[in-house]
Amino acid sequence: MNKITNLFEIKYPIIQGGMIWNSGYKLASAVSNAGGLGLIGAGSMYPDVLKEHIQKCQKATNKPFGVNVPMLYPDLDQIMQIIIEEGVKIVFTSAGNPKTWTQHLKDNGIKVVHVVSSSKFALKAEASGVDAVVAEGFEAGGHNGREETTTLTLIPMVKEKITIPLIAAGGIASGKTMLAAMILGADGVQMGTRFVASTESSAHDNFKNTVVNALEGDTQLTLKELAPVRMVKNKFFNDLQELYSKNPSKEDLESLLGKRRAKRGMFEGDLIEGELEIGQISGLIHDVLPVKTIVDNVMNEFHQTLKEIKQFQF
Amino acid sequence: MNKITNLFEIKYPIIQGGMIWNSGYKLASAVSNAGGLGLIGAGSMYPDVLKEHIQKCQKATNKPFGVNVPMLYPDLDQIMQIIIEEGVKIVFTSAGNPKTWTQHLKDNGIKVVHVVSSSKFALKAEASGVDAVVAEGFEAGGHNGREETTTLTLIPMVKEKITIPLIAAGGIASGKTMLAAMILGADGVQMGTRFVASTESSAHDNFKNTVVNALEGDTQLTLKELAPVRMVKNKFFNDLQELYSKNPSKEDLESLLGKRRAKRGMFEGDLIEGELEIGQISGLIHDVLPVKTIVDNVMNEFHQTLKEIKQFQF
Repeated sequence: MNKITNLFEIKYPIIQGGMIWNSGYKLASAVSNAGGLGLIGAGSMYPDVLKEHIQKCQKATNKPFGVNVPMLYPDLDQIMQIIIEEGVKIVFTSAGNPKTWTQHLKDNGIKVVHVVSSSKFALKAEASGVDAVVAEGFEAGGHNGREETTTLTLIPMVKEKITIPLIAAGGIASGKTMLAAMILGADGVQMGTRFVASTESSAHDNFKNTVVNALEGDTQLTLKELAPVRMVKNKFFNDLQELYSKNPSKEDLESLLGKRRAKRGMFEGDLIEGELEIGQISGLIHDVLPVKTIVDNVMNEFHQTLKEIKQFQF
Repeated sequence: MNKITNLFEIKYPIIQGGMIWNSGYKLASAVSNAGGLGLIGAGSMYPDVLKEHIQKCQKATNKPFGVNVPMLYPDLDQIMQIIIEEGVKIVFTSAGNPKTWTQHLKDNGIKVVHVVSSSKFALKAEASGVDAVVAEGFEAGGHNGREETTTLTLIPMVKEKITIPLIAAGGIASGKTMLAAMILGADGVQMGTRFVASTESSAHDNFKNTVVNALEGDTQLTLKELAPVRMVKNKFFNDLQELYSKNPSKEDLESLLGKRRAKRGMFEGDLIEGELEIGQISGLIHDVLPVKTIVDNVMNEFHQTLKEIKQFQF
């Protein structure tokens, strides 16, 4: 009936973004148990850590779950080997070329989804044989596309081009934003920031509270010269802007960024020097809630809104 | 039944953006005759020219229409005087402080709407006594907010804060994008780029064709140091980017921008040296159409989509 619930054999077409430092087995299994699709975020895990999270997730839920693999991290061969050996059935890949791993994963009975930021990359992903794409708009937290296309305009443009199932991401945290995305042509949605501010997320409490306290305009896309990323405008962000005013080289930017800003901010709770990756929709998130409450709230608002829009008759 | 159709006494809650160089009486009257609300764009008109367009619009339609006044242009006193004397009943103001003119216009029986890019400015506009606000997202063409908040996230955040009617703008050009905006909390929509590519727009044919030919990623927000504006990435845009690589002063930017880039691009059709202000949704616009066809297509898709979403049951 719905392409995404059918593809993953889940109840609701809600995917939890496999965000680094936020998405361990506790979050992933909670989302899957609540009727969505949980994803373990492999991007911040050493191979052994990932293996442990997969095994714990299998014990914590008998529902489908997946692993998100940003293909720019090291140990990629080992990561993919573990995913196959441990019997993971769903993999979301992001960054990198979808051609590299899709066929191998599919040969091992794994459903593959690739995250894109444009129609052009969506078409490439489709051609590489993926089962679905996530199209992520400019308002999304974390790494993002260079063309700055927003979810409202990206989803109908991608929908025009591809025939495989389409998952919308960026700016979605409620039943209304979910319904809007599906009206634009998405078959399901991926939510990141909303699940950061959940009881089960492995984010530091400081970071969860940052999501809750963030106001409109508190995030910005930056570091376009390296890989565009949306983050909170904290001291680290301001230091970056000051560096920009001095015409920095790529190396200058890399040097200020350093190696563990994201861990420091999101996992260790350093709100001053850390990199705090959240989306614009944080301005609409006012509480840390258990995953089941988040999913129930979203679906209740979704169904309630479906009823109410009968008033839209002219 | 609908706050916007009631407020303006129109059939459909579709407003045509009062864009400079595009929105003469022909476009405004055509939109009003088609059941929406047409706006004459005063921003590119000398007082005498505006007067002529108002008088011609009154002859071309017996339906309500309005005038858009960007409050940063010269001759503002004279413009407002003409609007009052000529019996215009609806004014959309943008830029500037809504407190300055709202009460005076309302004392003269005029309905006033102010264009904003954030909840903060929406609250200020509400406090100044306007009848409605237009909240415009990052994807919109032309002048735009500094916080880069997208329509998908902006509309629910503004809706949370204000009680007066809310019009969504930025990224809307079809029945689906219109329905999505209304699900997010808007009572109506304002469309700009879609009406540039209309038979009745006063844009140069070259500029209309630019909208039709624009692909995803062909526009970008720039000139944030002066007033952020989204435009096509043509030679003029590239010259700006080259200047940016040299750490320009505000004066350097103003000097390259010059005085009549917008007229040159949009009205005279100079696609190389002109400023071509269109929104991201241009990637979804594939034809120049008569206004009535545009409005009918939007409303047909809107109603068709309302029927189809009955499938969204989980």
